Parts: sequence; structure tokens; C-alpha cells
Amino acid sequence: MPQLPSLSADDLRSYHAQIRQRYDAFAKRGVKLNLTRGKPSSAQLDLCNQLLSLPGNGDFMAGNIDCRNYGELAGLPELRSLLATVFGVTADRVIVGENASLSLMHDSVAFSMLKGNCDSERPWSKESRIAFLCPVPGYDRHFSICQEFGIEMIAVPLNEGGPDMDVVEKLVAGDAQIKGIWCVPKYSNPTGTVYSNETIERLAKMKTAARDFRLFWDNAYAVHHLTAERIEIANIDEACARNGNPNRAFIFGSTSKVTFAGAGVGVFASSKGNVSWYLKRIEKRTIGGDKVNQLRHLRLLKNADGVATLMDKHRAIMAPKFDKVLETFGEHLGSTGVASWTKPKGGYFITLDVMDGCAKQVVKLAKEAGVELTPAGATHPLGNDPHDRTIRIAPSFPDLAEVAQAAEGVVLSVLLAATEKLLAKG
Amino acid sequence: MPQLPSLSADDLRSYHAQIRQRYDAFAKRGVKLNLTRGKPSSAQLDLCNQLLSLPGNGDFMAGNIDCRNYGELAGLPELRSLLATVFGVTADRVIVGENASLSLMHDSVAFSMLKGNCDSERPWSKESRIAFLCPVPGYDRHFSICQEFGIEMIAVPLNEGGPDMDVVEKLVAGDAQIKGIWCVPKYSNPTGTVYSNETIERLAKMKTAARDFRLFWDNAYAVHHLTAERIEIANIDEACARNGNPNRAFIFGSTSKVTFAGAGVGVFASSKGNVSWYLKRIEKRTIGGDKVNQLRHLRLLKNADGVATLMDKHRAIMAPKFDKVLETFGEHLGSTGVASWTKPKGGYFITLDVMDGCAKQVVKLAKEAGVELTPAGATHPLGNDPHDRTIRIAPSFPDLAEVAQAAEGVVLSVLLAATEKLLAKG
Repeated sequence: MPQLPSLSADDLRSYHAQIRQRYDAFAKRGVKLNLTRGKPSSAQLDLCNQLLSLPGNGDFMAGNIDCRNYGELAGLPELRSLLATVFGVTADRVIVGENASLSLMHDSVAFSMLKGNCDSERPWSKESRIAFLCPVPGYDRHFSICQEFGIEMIAVPLNEGGPDMDVVEKLVAGDAQIKGIWCVPKYSNPTGTVYSNETIERLAKMKTAARDFRLFWDNAYAVHHLTAERIEIANIDEACARNGNPNRAFIFGSTSKVTFAGAGVGVFASSKGNVSWYLKRIEKRTIGGDKVNQLRHLRLLKNADGVATLMDKHRAIMAPKFDKVLETFGEHLGSTGVASWTKPKGGYFITLDVMDGCAKQVVKLAKEAGVELTPAGATHPLGNDPHDRTIRIAPSFPDLAEVAQAAEGVVLSVLLAATEKLLAKG
Repeated sequence: MPQLPSLSADDLRSYHAQIRQRYDAFAKRGVKLNLTRGKPSSAQLDLCNQLLSLPGNGDFMAGNIDCRNYGELAGLPELRSLLATVFGVTADRVIVGENASLSLMHDSVAFSMLKGNCDSERPWSKESRIAFLCPVPGYDRHFSICQEFGIEMIAVPLNEGGPDMDVVEKLVAGDAQIKGIWCVPKYSNPTGTVYSNETIERLAKMKTAARDFRLFWDNAYAVHHLTAERIEIANIDEACARNGNPNRAFIFGSTSKVTFAGAGVGVFASSKGNVSWYLKRIEKRTIGGDKVNQLRHLRLLKNADGVATLMDKHRAIMAPKFDKVLETFGEHLGSTGVASWTKPKGGYFITLDVMDGCAKQVVKLAKEAGVELTPAGATHPLGNDPHDRTIRIAPSFPDLAEVAQAAEGVVLSVLLAATEKLLAKG
């Protein structure tokens, strides 16, 4: 496995020919593999098949609440309690609703645009300009929400322990139109980054020119460990309150990757002021969420231990797939000098950085060889990765044998794109 | 049962004393009855208890779609087909999502505010003023959405066959800021009004100064008959298309009062252009609705016949309650000259009109006697019934014996308020 950028032109040509041959042979197999999205596999979904017949005949009361009827805007109290322990907030400040958290994030932004949040002087739509900080690489669906509402996205580097706080602090202190930052604080999408205690403290404490600035704290992978080390991060709600910024964090989470991806429950958790603001908004759009599904979740999960036990089973299915990708990358790309990648301890993604200017070509080559990847650029605002280098790898959905094949296809595409690029540079 | 306004002062005083005595006796019973909201009763919810264990173990595929996983933004094709027949639109123009239609109505307005609809020149929030026509009496949750977004509400009279079309046509032709009208075309909330074919044709055909004007067509009670006569109204989608206004109607519906009030499915149906616009909006907020719940509904309802059979069972529970209220009103208020009421052939409500200036007092007296009613004024924009005369009666939730008692309490409150008013007038 040669260091490609140091090869002589002749050696590079012959290495390229050899990779070309291997790539063509792979393409001929005619595989059809998909690593595009963070979808749970069938095996993972099977873990919760009990939900298909829960809560069960005659079981519809939660305390004195008939789950079949209207009401309970904030969700079933027992489920709010259970999820409060997962998200580090008291139960009275947890709202359970919808079937996933993306809707809650979208609506938090939409409501702010239409009405302002509880610290705003006016609706954001009445401001000349609204901007959000976007740590990159990041999650494309966060960026789509900003794009939908004409919110300017300012990319900030995502470092080892979270967003580059020197950059963040300077920006938010100097620009009152910056109203938010997207954060996936644990096992970040797509890098697997875990925010350090220092980063979390600085986010909670920093001075913001906008009084109504918010952390959009998407704790999507709170319990989604890939190793025996169950990493815990600092409690953002507590840190914000302690630093005199109690309303700063909107915390989001869901059971989408705990139970059923399409039929889970979403969580909004925040300060008293934010929760009261949010409830006032959603009482215009709903009489209450699907409490039968909430009861179903309560009966299945029971308590925080139930969640942890279930997540161990997810890990047993997921970890070998991640290991297989990392092993394949290590073996074939390890010392080539044309790729680097993250080694996440949780979450759903690996970030693969290829040679500058090669990501789009790698995705194209992989697709032509039967391996579909997330479009290059998706990890950046407006799909624009200025270095054309970052690729998100999502190994959760295919089975292990397919993941092994797909990783091989990716490796060959990376090597082919790199050698072509180096040859063209001449 | 005397004609109260024609009584002599002496007769009125003695009649008042007698009513006062009966009212006090009723209040002493210490009942606690609630006629405030259109909630199904437990007996109705029991009709669908199968949903509590559906779709059942191992049943999660709809065709080649794994209902447990992400995807299918517009909902399960089979359920879209089933509901298309109920709402008179082709299946490709039906979107199924959320657990009720209120959310879809809210979002249609919110999306229009933020982005404009597919015929708008700009987002409605960028207009100096937005107004909606509100046939009165109407549904308070419609009005709350307008209030939330600062939309001016212009009350228009609701007559026997629907909104007063002379008034409506004149208003929408002359004011380009009027962007919508709230319509509950069948068994209207709260009057039970059924829109005539002529009204529907005129709504579809009328010239509107606003190109992006929309009918917010809340067909909440499409299959919710109270008599053997299953009234069918004209097809609004077809009428709009035929009159060259294909995008005019946003059609809403749900299974909230077919299956479980809190755990049903909502429907948005419209033209190709509107559906495409709506999908572009919701793809920012969701990866898809709860397809397991959609599958559950498919397994329970099966087809349009399944819906009709189920609705007959609802009717068997609901109709006696309505009959009891109407019988009690007829017996005690019939020839008093101080009240009139609607005799709905479907839906969830009876509208009771009392003497001008008495509705608030009736609601207050009823409450003090243990019978909670929807607040007076709720049937009008901003809670302001200029005549203080209209009361919404919702007899669905209590059981039949309770409904009988509650109707008695209402009757006594109406008579007490009327005699007091007449005495005060002297």
C-alpha cells in the first residue's frame, strides 16, 4: 500500500492501471448497495416488533388518561418522566410529540420566524437578515431547514471536541443577527464528534449579541453507543441555567433509532420559559400527540434501564458493520496518504475525507460500481463543500456482508479518483 | 310552556320564581357534566379497540414498504387510495400524515405565511395585511390559527345552504388581501349546516382579486351521519377544476372521529400543484409520517365499506344523544320564544341560539349548576359574538343518561337567563 503522492509518475501509472482493473472487476459484480442514509436495518427494527401488537387489547389507560381520546398537549406524563432522565431535564420541561424530532426542530425555527421566540423583540421574519452557525461537516436536514426559510448559514469548523469555540464566540458576540447554531453534541452526524465539557461550558456561557440566540441541541444519539464506553457529555440545560442563560438551549431527541425509525416519538426539552412558549405555539396546531403510540413506547421501554438494554442490542448489530468499514479503510487506505476518516464511538456515521477535489468523483465512481453514497457536499450548507473532500458513510442499513462489499467499492473508488487526480496534476 | 316575551310582568315574575326553584334544585344535585368539546365517548372509542393490537406481530410490510422504517413522505399508497374515495380526489393527490387534520390546516397557513402558496407572488408574511373570511358561527380552532398569525378575520353569515354567497363574492372580488375562507362544508361545526350544490359551485367559480386565494375545506364530518340519510355534497375538487380554478381548494379530513380521536391519521388532498407545493414544504420537517399507524388503519378499515359500517356503529351511539337534547329543548323551550336551535343530520354539534345578550349568562348559570359548556363567543372570531346569543352544544362525550341531565341543566339556565333579562328590561 504505497504512499500515493510520493510515487514516481511511472509507479503511479502502473498502480493506477492495477486499481482500474480491480475497480472494473468490482463493478462487473453488479452489486446494488446503499450507504446513503442513517436508516436502521431490518434486524434492528426486529428488536422492537413487540410494538406491532402493543399496547394490547384493553390497555389504553395511562393513569386516568384515556390514550385513545384527545388531549395531553405535552404528552403522557409517564413517558415524559422516562425521557427526562435520558435528556437530563426535569419531566415538567419535556414535551413528547410527533413521530420524530426533525418536525420539532423545523417547527422551532418556523415558530421563531413567524412569532419570535420568548426572548425575541419581533418575529425573525421581520428582521432584515437571520443567520445560523453551522459546524461543518454537519447534517444536511438541519441545513435544509435554514435554506427553506432563507436563513443565512455561516460554516464554522468542527474540531475534535466540538465547534471551534474561538470562532463561534467571536461571531455570536459581534453579530446580533446570528440567532442560532446547529449542534449534534454527541456522536455527531457525520463525524462522530463528542463535544468536550469545555466546549459545552463555553457554548452555555458565551456572550451573544442576540438576546434571543438559541442552541439547537440535536441530541439524536444520546444513547447510541458503538463501544462499551457509554460516553456521557455535560448537561447543557444545567450549564445554561448556571451561566445565567436558562433559555439558551432547545434540546431535541427521539426514539427513531431506539424503536421504529418511522414510528417513534420525538422530544423537545428546554427551560420553563421555552416550554411554555412552545406549548402556546403547538396548541394552535394540535390537541395532542398520538398518546397510544406513547403508551406503546412506555410499555416496551418501561424505564431508562429498558432503553439501555435495548441499545446494547442495537450496538451488537451496528458495531461489527462499523468495524468492517474501518478495517477495510485501514487495510487499503491506511498509508496511502489520500484519505482519512473518523472512528466514531457512537452514532450512525463515519466521515471519510478524500483528496481535495475528489469527493464528487469518488461518489460518482462508487455509484457506477453499484455503491450509492450520500451526495458529496451534503455535509455542508447549500451542498457546497469548498474542498470537495468530505463524504458521509452510513453503514447501518445493509447487512454485514453487504457492508463489507460496499466498503471495498468505496476504497477502490477513492484510490481510482486519487490516482487519476495525481496523474492529471502530472 | 308560555311565550315568555308576551307574558305580563306579574306572570313573568311568578314564572321566573318557579324556574329559579327548579334551577336551584337541579344545581343541588351536584352533577358534573361536560358538553364543551366534540370528543368521542368511550363507547365510540371501544369500536376500534382492535387498533390496540394491530397491525399484529410480524405484520409490517405494505407491499414492498417496511412501515417501521423511514420514508413515504405522502403516506402509504394503499391508505391514500382508501381515503381518496372518501374525499373525492385521486389517490396521487392525497397526502396522509400526522395524527389529525388540525396540524395540516395549521401548517398550510403557516407555510403560506412563510413561503406563499404555489400561486403567491410573495410570502403572506411579507404582505401588509392578510384576511380570511370566517362564516359564523364557526369552529374556534380555525379562528385561533388566524389569530396566531395576525390574520384579520372577516365574519360572514352562515345561512341554510352555506356562507352567504352574495357577501362572499363581493368581498373576495374587491379585496386582494383576502386569501382564504374557512369552510366546514358538511354537518358544519357548530350548526350542522350542509353546503348546497349551488353554494359549492359559486365558491368554486367566483372571481377572487387574490390569485392565491384558497378555500380551507375542512371536511371533518364527511362520513359522520346522524340519520339514515347519508348526505353527499358536490365534489369541490371537481368543481374548482371545471371552473378553471384547480388550485383553489385545500381539502382536509381525518379519521379522528372514525377511529381514535388522538391516534388517527390526517389527510390533505388537493390539486397536483398544491400537493407538490405541500410535499416540498413537509419534506423539510419530516422523513415521513407514522406508517405503522397508517398500516394499522388499513388493516382495521380495509376499504370504504369498512368505513361506512364503522360509521353506522358510531351513529347508533351518537344519534340517541342528539335526539335526547333535541327532545328536551323541544319540550321545554319549544314555544317560549327565547331560544332556537339547529337539528343537524350529522357531525358533532347542535347550535343553540338564546335571547340576545344572554349567551354568556346561560353558560355561567349552567356551569354553576354543574354543566360545562363551550364558552359563549367561541363560535365567533376573537371570541366575540356581537349578539351574545350563540352557544355550541357538544353531546358526544357523556353517556345518554348524563346527556339527558345536562340538557335539562341547559334548558333551566336558558329559561332563567331569559326571564331575568326580560324582568330587567321591565
